[in-house]
Amino acid sequence: MTTSEQQKLDLRYGPGRLPAPETWSPVIDHLLDHRSVRRYRPDPVSDDQLTAIIAAAQSAATSSNLHAWSVVAVRDPATRAALSECAGNQAHVRDAPLQLVWLADLARLEHVARLAERPCAALDYMEMFVIAVVDAALAAQNAIAAAQSLGLSGCYIGGMRNQPEKVAELLGLPPKVFAVFGMTIGIEDDSAGAAAIKPRLPQSAVLHHERYQPLKNLDAAVDDYNRTMGDFYESQHMDVHGTWAVHSSKRISEAKSLTGRDRLVEALHNLGFKLK
Amino acid sequence: MTTSEQQKLDLRYGPGRLPAPETWSPVIDHLLDHRSVRRYRPDPVSDDQLTAIIAAAQSAATSSNLHAWSVVAVRDPATRAALSECAGNQAHVRDAPLQLVWLADLARLEHVARLAERPCAALDYMEMFVIAVVDAALAAQNAIAAAQSLGLSGCYIGGMRNQPEKVAELLGLPPKVFAVFGMTIGIEDDSAGAAAIKPRLPQSAVLHHERYQPLKNLDAAVDDYNRTMGDFYESQHMDVHGTWAVHSSKRISEAKSLTGRDRLVEALHNLGFKLK
Repeated sequence: MTTSEQQKLDLRYGPGRLPAPETWSPVIDHLLDHRSVRRYRPDPVSDDQLTAIIAAAQSAATSSNLHAWSVVAVRDPATRAALSECAGNQAHVRDAPLQLVWLADLARLEHVARLAERPCAALDYMEMFVIAVVDAALAAQNAIAAAQSLGLSGCYIGGMRNQPEKVAELLGLPPKVFAVFGMTIGIEDDSAGAAAIKPRLPQSAVLHHERYQPLKNLDAAVDDYNRTMGDFYESQHMDVHGTWAVHSSKRISEAKSLTGRDRLVEALHNLGFKLK
Repeated sequence: MTTSEQQKLDLRYGPGRLPAPETWSPVIDHLLDHRSVRRYRPDPVSDDQLTAIIAAAQSAATSSNLHAWSVVAVRDPATRAALSECAGNQAHVRDAPLQLVWLADLARLEHVARLAERPCAALDYMEMFVIAVVDAALAAQNAIAAAQSLGLSGCYIGGMRNQPEKVAELLGLPPKVFAVFGMTIGIEDDSAGAAAIKPRLPQSAVLHHERYQPLKNLDAAVDDYNRTMGDFYESQHMDVHGTWAVHSSKRISEAKSLTGRDRLVEALHNLGFKLK
């Protein structure tokens, strides 16, 4: 345990919240450094960097080795601007030099099965949608860790699900392919300050031992997190009304809070996912 | 670029398939080393190691900072054996000293909203299920990378979705919590040989530039991968009938191929996910 490790844990959980364990590694150190970056310099991401990032992404596990994912690398400014419009007009989607759109992809498997003259009826089930979403997420998480190790930064873009059919049209996606999320990649523009590490819930609120603990046991941890996030909002001069609990509750209060994503089932049906 | 990097890429893509890029990092090196390990020594995973692994997991992005995931750490041999039965009797689920069951968790958010006396109607939508599944997957991928950096090994257990209600009962999950997958963690038992790195599809088959490429463009890459996997099956003395394409087609041929997971929607409804 070194001071540096304790400093990283203080940023991640709030000062003094979690004593550093004796066990540590450079990789863990790197993963703790993750920050979602929303301001980018225009410098391009090279093909060479992209090759290394995708090699890391493909090294993640894939269910039954089915490879039920793909990714579209978008550098064209016009497409980035159009994707930004789809995703709630987020400026960093337009400005980041590279947008990686991560796809739950059952079309390649369908194509492979057809070439082999075999049926592929299981693709119509919810289970295969879950497999594809998880495959895409595991690959993406390796990619962002790899990108950060090359001095690049990133941010997941859930807004890519606001208008799934529009995104599919822009990227020419065939049926049975769905853009699960985007990811901005580029060099951070920290001229107005670097993005901060956002604190997380105490471990006791997310880690259960042997069985899921009663929900009321979480109350103290949530209270503590409300204080940690209050301090964080203040340090970042963020104008957040109410605690994390209130802020989060607003996000899940009603269908309208989902910025169009309340029609996701309809959109998935339109994209060829039967979700049986 | 060093020889070691080229060797790692040769294992990941087949010999000579992908020239090493000039850009590389120790983190990418580590991620390339991933292997799914299915034989474990009984040595326990310490609380100290678990703390470091969970800190890495929590450092992954979480949609709108909602933390829509949890994890149950199971060490009890009886529970491990019961989980193994749920997951198609996989011996490594029983034998690995630690099973991490990764949860899509909307119950904590519901609890937080209720305490704040606010509605949480959006939790009933498919979008929130997707958010929770993705959150769990991103956290899990950081966890397995962290575990491997501590000399531990792991394997994702999709079989945890074979009998979702049974798993929920074993772990005491409240409504709106779903075990997305398990993950064995422990020290590899390599007395009969270490697990191999499994080759992946050529990058050209998963990485699209600007737009999704026509599916027929993938045929050469899939043919090449069939050869790579043929060589791999042979080197591993695996008795696989037919090519990767045929093997994968069988996995998706019909509802029965899904080992019980064709009833996932019904199971999710039973677990409190309305998937609207």
